[in-house]
Amino acid sequence: MDTQESNYFSELEIRSAKHSQFLRLTDKIEEEIQHRGWYDGLLHIFIPHTTAGLTIQEDADPDVIKDILYVLDRIVPWHDPSYCHTEGNTAAHIKTALLGNSVHCNVKEGRLRLGRWQGIFLCEFDGPRTRKVQLTFLPFYR
Amino acid sequence: MDTQESNYFSELEIRSAKHSQFLRLTDKIEEEIQHRGWYDGLLHIFIPHTTAGLTIQEDADPDVIKDILYVLDRIVPWHDPSYCHTEGNTAAHIKTALLGNSVHCNVKEGRLRLGRWQGIFLCEFDGPRTRKVQLTFLPFYR
Amino acid sequence: MDTQESNYFSELEIRSAKHSQFLRLTDKIEEEIQHRGWYDGLLHIFIPHTTAGLTIQEDADPDVIKDILYVLDRIVPWHDPSYCHTEGNTAAHIKTALLGNSVHCNVKEGRLRLGRWQGIFLCEFDGPRTRKVQLTFLPFYR
Repeated sequence: MDTQESNYFSELEIRSAKHSQFLRLTDKIEEEIQHRGWYDGLLHIFIPHTTAGLTIQEDADPDVIKDILYVLDRIVPWHDPSYCHTEGNTAAHIKTALLGNSVHCNVKEGRLRLGRWQGIFLCEFDGPRTRKVQLTFLPFYR
Repeated sequence: MDTQESNYFSELEIRSAKHSQFLRLTDKIEEEIQHRGWYDGLLHIFIPHTTAGLTIQEDADPDVIKDILYVLDRIVPWHDPSYCHTEGNTAAHIKTALLGNSVHCNVKEGRLRLGRWQGIFLCEFDGPRTRKVQLTFLPFYR
Repeated sequence: MDTQESNYFSELEIRSAKHSQFLRLTDKIEEEIQHRGWYDGLLHIFIPHTTAGLTIQEDADPDVIKDILYVLDRIVPWHDPSYCHTEGNTAAHIKTALLGNSVHCNVKEGRLRLGRWQGIFLCEFDGPRTRKVQLTFLPFYR
């Protein structure tokens, strides 16, 4: 990474522990924002994977995440004789497509401008794996 | 909100009237764009809630929205004995995760550069409530 | 399109050949990035339609896309007596709402900073049609 780019771009590495789980990213991202000195602007978050997504959802009661995983499993079962992809992780690709692989959030005075109940999550659907998360900051002033 | 930030950031307040409904935001957002004098650039729209999302969909025949609400109810029923979240609004969280909580749109000469049939909607899944919508404008020139 | 805008904005035209298919956009987008001289920054991709979406998914084994189309058909069948929208393409609207109509990707030295397996796809759900795709580039330096 060259010096210029590093002003506005950063990459995190996250290790998932289970096959399917949501990992909280909010604190890690806010630490990086402060470490980089990003202050006022817009943060774009992107995951460069096809079997893990990103979402912003409730970070108060962990049962919400449990319920989301349960419903996704019901809608997109892991086993289905009609799947063609021989690698066996079709469901992980589809869940990722449904949730998406990018989110954004405003940054105000070095803090994420999330709603009261919101947290940013990495949605692991085919772990455990080491995942990367790209952060791009677009400052209001420079 | 400080003066600097207010150049590029704005917040709308929207009151939903029903438990589940899509609320048209296009005109309100375009008014705000013109009020702020935002001219050419990219607009990011973010909802800081976990039981209401955002989408860009057909704004001509209201039956399209009716059908989307119907299918979401079928995929993610309000009642399911397997839900763990005791607040009872699990379905609203999941629908929000599926549709997402941000959209973006180009702005050209103070107008949203939407497709002919597109409108921007707030997707209320657990109303009636007062909801906020964050607008962030990234100008091409400044 | 005026000259100023054309520095950061571009529009592609894509012709789909089937009723439902994912069309690879990665190469077309990268060609446009290089043609425009966009170098380091963030690219936003937007589709101004309501029956075709955008996604970033695996671009190695085409069976992944086949499986995504299969599951979407199962979740949102084309025919359902409960649909109200008389145009008959309700399913295409709903699939588009589920996958979304925008994605973003970092650009580094004129190349898309995608993950190893990722490709950008136009998701046609009601073709064949001619579709437009809007590209907006936000440079890190100017």
